[in-house]
Amino acid sequence: MLLEALRTAVLEANLELVRRGLVLYTFGNASGVDRAQGLVVIKPSGVDYDDLRPEHMVVTDLHGNIIDGTLKPSSDLDTHTLLYREFPTIGAVIHTHSEFATSFAQAGLPIPALGTTHADYFYGPVPCTKPLTDKAISARYVHETGLAITQLFADQGIDPLAVPACLVNGHAPFAWGKDPHDAAHNAVVLEAVAKMAYNTLTLIPNHPGVSQALLDRHYFRKHGSTATYGQ
Amino acid sequence: MLLEALRTAVLEANLELVRRGLVLYTFGNASGVDRAQGLVVIKPSGVDYDDLRPEHMVVTDLHGNIIDGTLKPSSDLDTHTLLYREFPTIGAVIHTHSEFATSFAQAGLPIPALGTTHADYFYGPVPCTKPLTDKAISARYVHETGLAITQLFADQGIDPLAVPACLVNGHAPFAWGKDPHDAAHNAVVLEAVAKMAYNTLTLIPNHPGVSQALLDRHYFRKHGSTATYGQ
Amino acid sequence: MLLEALRTAVLEANLELVRRGLVLYTFGNASGVDRAQGLVVIKPSGVDYDDLRPEHMVVTDLHGNIIDGTLKPSSDLDTHTLLYREFPTIGAVIHTHSEFATSFAQAGLPIPALGTTHADYFYGPVPCTKPLTDKAISARYVHETGLAITQLFADQGIDPLAVPACLVNGHAPFAWGKDPHDAAHNAVVLEAVAKMAYNTLTLIPNHPGVSQALLDRHYFRKHGSTATYGQ
Amino acid sequence: MLLEALRTAVLEANLELVRRGLVLYTFGNASGVDRAQGLVVIKPSGVDYDDLRPEHMVVTDLHGNIIDGTLKPSSDLDTHTLLYREFPTIGAVIHTHSEFATSFAQAGLPIPALGTTHADYFYGPVPCTKPLTDKAISARYVHETGLAITQLFADQGIDPLAVPACLVNGHAPFAWGKDPHDAAHNAVVLEAVAKMAYNTLTLIPNHPGVSQALLDRHYFRKHGSTATYGQ
Repeated sequence: MLLEALRTAVLEANLELVRRGLVLYTFGNASGVDRAQGLVVIKPSGVDYDDLRPEHMVVTDLHGNIIDGTLKPSSDLDTHTLLYREFPTIGAVIHTHSEFATSFAQAGLPIPALGTTHADYFYGPVPCTKPLTDKAISARYVHETGLAITQLFADQGIDPLAVPACLVNGHAPFAWGKDPHDAAHNAVVLEAVAKMAYNTLTLIPNHPGVSQALLDRHYFRKHGSTATYGQ
Repeated sequence: MLLEALRTAVLEANLELVRRGLVLYTFGNASGVDRAQGLVVIKPSGVDYDDLRPEHMVVTDLHGNIIDGTLKPSSDLDTHTLLYREFPTIGAVIHTHSEFATSFAQAGLPIPALGTTHADYFYGPVPCTKPLTDKAISARYVHETGLAITQLFADQGIDPLAVPACLVNGHAPFAWGKDPHDAAHNAVVLEAVAKMAYNTLTLIPNHPGVSQALLDRHYFRKHGSTATYGQ
Repeated sequence: MLLEALRTAVLEANLELVRRGLVLYTFGNASGVDRAQGLVVIKPSGVDYDDLRPEHMVVTDLHGNIIDGTLKPSSDLDTHTLLYREFPTIGAVIHTHSEFATSFAQAGLPIPALGTTHADYFYGPVPCTKPLTDKAISARYVHETGLAITQLFADQGIDPLAVPACLVNGHAPFAWGKDPHDAAHNAVVLEAVAKMAYNTLTLIPNHPGVSQALLDRHYFRKHGSTATYGQ
Repeated sequence: MLLEALRTAVLEANLELVRRGLVLYTFGNASGVDRAQGLVVIKPSGVDYDDLRPEHMVVTDLHGNIIDGTLKPSSDLDTHTLLYREFPTIGAVIHTHSEFATSFAQAGLPIPALGTTHADYFYGPVPCTKPLTDKAISARYVHETGLAITQLFADQGIDPLAVPACLVNGHAPFAWGKDPHDAAHNAVVLEAVAKMAYNTLTLIPNHPGVSQALLDRHYFRKHGSTATYGQ
């Protein structure tokens, strides 16, 4: 079976989203990329999670052409492939409608960096795109969704591995990482961070966010050549 | 046993409500209709879910006359039968007191379409009836509850399959669908959508709702002859 | 063993509180009364729920004198016995620190009747006592807690079986019923009703409550000689 | 194995945090101290809870020098050891990012004493430190985190056993107790108290807190030579 290990990792990432309560029914999808072969492995569309097996995963190239698989790929495929093309350092993409991150996306608000839980994973606010124009929606909508993300990161000069998530306005979050396990982990932490940001902002509406010094300290504690966390 | 498959489907829909945390004790009820025979299958009133078996389901005609069954039908029967008579395209009805949808019903507020999760299932706001008049309450109350729903849909020209749910003011939601499985699914998604609308509106009180273009794109992605979602 | 059936029912009511997430660790307690013998059965103080057996229940008279049992009774005993003396129609008392009912008690706010879920169980707002005076707190505090409840019901002319719960200001709820099963059921529904009232009031702060007609219709649907709910 | 009973107690406290939903992934850590030997037992950094065994615990002296263990200790070690040096009456320290306590920490707000649940465990508000200065953050950050706690308690004359928790501004809570079991218990109750304080303050923003008389009554009901709670 082509890309067997990656299929298993993508399936496992999907199941982690279920276990952590991030997806309801078949909402949400995960994919991973094999950079050497230029191939993407993604969940099929609308299949019950209980029935998912590695062989059900769909393999496409970086432009979404199906290479292997009999099922239709996730309807969000074009967003995933665009992210892989534009963010060459990422290895996996996750999309969920997790409750609190989606609530910020619906409000059109970024998730500000309000504490060290956030700073451990996201080096600055998790941004929210502008609403898609009617023209973008009626054209290649799924592609345009990805474009809204990649253009926002380009315009604001954000490194996608430093802030491995983005909210799509009126829709829901996308998260990513170096591999499917890491991307799912980031999606789960994003939801926890969004929940605490919701609580914080409903207690005190105007919060300046943590200091740059605290953001630096926590982010670099877990990332880069000076990381000290873990074994 | 009369209507055995429909009894099983109605029971299963009731149990799905329990599994998804939508009902407490015996709150909530599901029914289904056999249009060819003009018969309704509905949960009995106030029986523990653990004890429910297909043979406990009550069979009535479309006016609530009992055709088969020794137990009393759900006390909301007259709302169910009115919905079947007035909405000829629906095949099942669900009533719950699920927490967030009920909170909007208590507030007398519709659930606005704030994102794509909503738009995937409900083609516009989930409306809320006006409060029932004292006269309606003291007359055929359960029938009047159904009337408040069907008149609201008629007045606003809403297709019941395009918006398969309604909030009853000061009471709780009703949802429906083409069959019991579909109706329960809509009731579960309604609660998720209500929860995220609550979060969104407590973050930013005045939200214009998503654009018509986004509503169209997501709704028709899953519904109608141009649907692309799933296998 | 004295009062064996009542001991089992009281223990079962305590366990129902745990199953429904109303108590954390050993918070909360249940008791029942045998009116014929004038004896109260109550949970012992601070014993892990996992270890509780019917024989651990403590038996007292209506003034809290221990009749049977080697363990110390719940520290709230004097509130329970006062409620039994002053409310001769009740058969069981429950005390919890369940999250949302306690939040209203801490806010010093009654839980208004905002919908039919409330009206099915509580015929009007669930009242909240005034804060206890320093004198009452430093005197027979647990007895004074009960007095705050019974005097409030007397002053406002509330029938304890029509509104089977009260919030103690700055403390938490007490609920009761005709037997331990019924009292635990009321405590569980009180928490659900409090949660939905919280959501409703944070969506729209000033809510007039449901109409008297709706309150009448739902309450008498489940209570009194004209009740129609259940089998 | 050195300090075998304490290792088991520290591991068990960590697992209690998982069971009660206070930690996500490897967030959070527990430690305990053997005062006679001057040794600290602490969780290793970033190891999955499922894989933790007593022999994985790391043993250090009161200044964080590793005495026994092959794994790296929790990255928060320097906060733990400072608390042990400055608070000689405590026997265990817990750090979590539990949702509601962390939300107050992010808001920079103390958790006021709003009810008896709070008063049973915390004799006054759970304080929140000032934000750490950039200098403190860029210096010995983890040590400075502990210093912010101990200086706050010294400045305000708070007995660490009377208020066994503190919020670190922009970060999360620390809790402690006489042994690991007790410290974990305090961390769990802190989260419950924070959740109810959140609900209370979003219902009524300005709350004066409970009276000193009620605080005294409840706190001394469970603590000190006049305690009456439990067996």
